[in-house]
Amino acid sequence: MWCEKHSRARVGKGTYALASTRSLAPGFLQANVTVVPARLAADFVTFCLRNPRALPLLDVCFARDGFASPRLAPEADVLKDVPWFRVTKQGRPLTNGSVRDPAPFLSPGSVAVLTGCSFSFEDDLVSQGLWRPHPGRNVPMFRTRIANAPCGPFAGNLVVSMRWIRRDNVARVRAVTSAHAISHGAPLDDIDPAELNLARPDYGDANDAQEPDCQPVFWACGVTAQAAVGAAVDDAVATHSPGHMFIADVRSADANRVLARVVE
Amino acid sequence: MWCEKHSRARVGKGTYALASTRSLAPGFLQANVTVVPARLAADFVTFCLRNPRALPLLDVCFARDGFASPRLAPEADVLKDVPWFRVTKQGRPLTNGSVRDPAPFLSPGSVAVLTGCSFSFEDDLVSQGLWRPHPGRNVPMFRTRIANAPCGPFAGNLVVSMRWIRRDNVARVRAVTSAHAISHGAPLDDIDPAELNLARPDYGDANDAQEPDCQPVFWACGVTAQAAVGAAVDDAVATHSPGHMFIADVRSADANRVLARVVE
Repeated sequence: MWCEKHSRARVGKGTYALASTRSLAPGFLQANVTVVPARLAADFVTFCLRNPRALPLLDVCFARDGFASPRLAPEADVLKDVPWFRVTKQGRPLTNGSVRDPAPFLSPGSVAVLTGCSFSFEDDLVSQGLWRPHPGRNVPMFRTRIANAPCGPFAGNLVVSMRWIRRDNVARVRAVTSAHAISHGAPLDDIDPAELNLARPDYGDANDAQEPDCQPVFWACGVTAQAAVGAAVDDAVATHSPGHMFIADVRSADANRVLARVVE
Repeated sequence: MWCEKHSRARVGKGTYALASTRSLAPGFLQANVTVVPARLAADFVTFCLRNPRALPLLDVCFARDGFASPRLAPEADVLKDVPWFRVTKQGRPLTNGSVRDPAPFLSPGSVAVLTGCSFSFEDDLVSQGLWRPHPGRNVPMFRTRIANAPCGPFAGNLVVSMRWIRRDNVARVRAVTSAHAISHGAPLDDIDPAELNLARPDYGDANDAQEPDCQPVFWACGVTAQAAVGAAVDDAVATHSPGHMFIADVRSADANRVLARVVE
């Protein structure tokens, strides 16, 4: 039960018809999910480790544990508790649109890798009046020209998310999001908006600034994983549909402590 | 070339007869090494991820890349460039003492996992006059009663290293080592020295305090990996011999930045 209205059990039953999980569990840590075959699991986890701004590793969930995350959601089943998945093979969709259950498409022994998600820092930006989402729309995301550090068949370019921020708030936004190291952390300084077509994002929805005197601010984005699963990956790989994340039992504010703790 | 006298090439040739790699490359990041079979690679990496104080993940090195670490030592071969290894199977030694080359004992497709090492923060403690090593001796290490967060066949208890610190320096020592998050970070508060036999460490060498008014201070230790590879692990696993670490091309002071960077 993340709040009075919403619970994981209701996600698993397909109760929700949502544009995204953003508003479902305010304050709770949300995670990107990538489900890869056993033979590529070490490669993909290492790919995340080498690209930590886009893919901060939270946990890896195994079939033998019912795809639970022992530290973040011991009772969950990541394969059931994400509203919608996409399944690809050699970088191409294997299904017509999203599916609720990716299991029939996956090889036995697949593992689900959880990585940090910007929904976690967005809650803080909203509550401090520094940013607000466009109702019913996802943030725009762009494929950049920055190559990821590759590992095995996983490569591709960095994907970034963009939010319009008032110029006089940029320093505060940097401070707030820096504290969310496991959810992409501070904005990236290496992105030149002139190199992107802001009106035509590669993922998500185009957004206009909602106030005057705003500038586009960019963060490393977990959709980088989807862009990294290209033609070189011969097996079926499932990823959460953009915006439809896995929601943990842990609050974002407690996540750093929970993930670093020595004694249970 | 880490300094005027020492280089990785000389380690690889077996030039050194050392008690440890501590003094070989002052200021350079050193790493624990655990070499596990392909089928257990995702389990072991996840085990590290779930026990980040003892086993902060630095990189994973694959046979196809010649066991190099792309970010920390692109020209290295981790299996050749560590002075001595131990090889175990089902938690028992497979060889009589340490070996220079573990490859003949390992299954094809094994991966080498690099995790942070306290030698990296020791340099800072020494240069700030807060601690000094006992000449020719390793620090004492103790198996605690704290269970690790398990993953697959990897479990066991936390191992901690101990250093005597002057009581009036403990706060400064905490501040200095906190900055080395990828090398075990701050001391642990959960360890009760009364529960350990300080005169009989489980690994390393017993040390007496070198000054009056000292107290024992404990850190999570990478030897936790060796204690975690127990009877449930059916395959040969190689670990660096205690004190004989892998030395990276990256300086400890730059490591946080190098490991987090987005653009090469």
